[in-house]
Amino acid sequence: MFITFEGSDGSGKTTQVQLLAEYLRQAGRSVLKTREPGGTRISDGVRQLLLDLAHTEMHARAETLLFNAARAQLVAEVIRPALAEGTVVLCDRFADSTLAYQGYGHQQEIAEMARMIEYATGGLRPDLTVFLDLPPWEGLRRNRSQGNGKWNRLDAQELSFHQRVVAGYRKLIAREPQRWVEIDASQPREQVHQDVVRAVEKRLAVFAPAP
Amino acid sequence: MFITFEGSDGSGKTTQVQLLAEYLRQAGRSVLKTREPGGTRISDGVRQLLLDLAHTEMHARAETLLFNAARAQLVAEVIRPALAEGTVVLCDRFADSTLAYQGYGHQQEIAEMARMIEYATGGLRPDLTVFLDLPPWEGLRRNRSQGNGKWNRLDAQELSFHQRVVAGYRKLIAREPQRWVEIDASQPREQVHQDVVRAVEKRLAVFAPAP
Repeated sequence: MFITFEGSDGSGKTTQVQLLAEYLRQAGRSVLKTREPGGTRISDGVRQLLLDLAHTEMHARAETLLFNAARAQLVAEVIRPALAEGTVVLCDRFADSTLAYQGYGHQQEIAEMARMIEYATGGLRPDLTVFLDLPPWEGLRRNRSQGNGKWNRLDAQELSFHQRVVAGYRKLIAREPQRWVEIDASQPREQVHQDVVRAVEKRLAVFAPAP
Repeated sequence: MFITFEGSDGSGKTTQVQLLAEYLRQAGRSVLKTREPGGTRISDGVRQLLLDLAHTEMHARAETLLFNAARAQLVAEVIRPALAEGTVVLCDRFADSTLAYQGYGHQQEIAEMARMIEYATGGLRPDLTVFLDLPPWEGLRRNRSQGNGKWNRLDAQELSFHQRVVAGYRKLIAREPQRWVEIDASQPREQVHQDVVRAVEKRLAVFAPAP
């Protein structure tokens, strides 16, 4: 089973992936936790290029191709082998981020983005995608107030960009409601975790009964 | 005018680009010399990932996306602005290398490669492409005998791969003979240079009369 987490920066994806991984491991499941961009040596190299604050000259097309390069390597080297072994794979961001950020955010053609994603992933799609719902200004405020070096080149986009991203996520959810679960990320993190667990258990019961 | 150089590794592209740049500058033309992958700060970062001998795990799809990411940045940041100013741009490898190596060499779908190139370049195509023709084993032998650190991950592919690449170039030439000029790269380098100059002058006379 392949579960991805999506949402604005600062919506708590990384924390929730971690909490869910711990929960599933305690329930006796084999779990692999990864993230985009990154998760392999080559993909982490691409991640450094993408998130470097100094790279203000990066063109939207180069950015989109780099995200998909990191994704192609992650899918081939890590995600597919893990799924083949029956491991539950949790990924902090995946292809929907390209559609939301590079597609809707940077206003590139969605069909073009979808075709490139299909190529990069070889057609692999998540079984469940958790959308951590938070107003974009709230996520930006959280990240900024942390002041812990998490601020990167992609965070530094203007607010209107982030509003297009959230509107893009809404369109993606409307198109495939059965794949997505929306969770109010403004709740306390333990409550968000409970909501995530409930959604995942519901899907797991159908998909892969507990060992 | 946009002129690209293609051919096997070791066929002398870098030398011939350099000689042609000197020739055109002495003739009073503004010339920009660049190469793929590379030519910008971001593209050079991608180049490091691509050519690192240690990256034996690199998947063909990640490789293709990385080449196109480097290309997208080079076109947007360097090639298009230079062409807009009337500069003659010489590029050591360009999109045809992706078709020949990642398409024909790695046996990926050519139409898919062409679509990604169209996206990366925004439709920019060379006005003239010089093919430096050399048997692949001869290019490999030249590179190996240099022993000067030029041997990289992509050189280290087996000979059958390089034979598919050369056969791929032949198909590309057959499809667009008016864009390509084939030059026998087994000749002495000064003779190769003379052949290159003749082909370029013929094209320049039509395209952009000398200042």
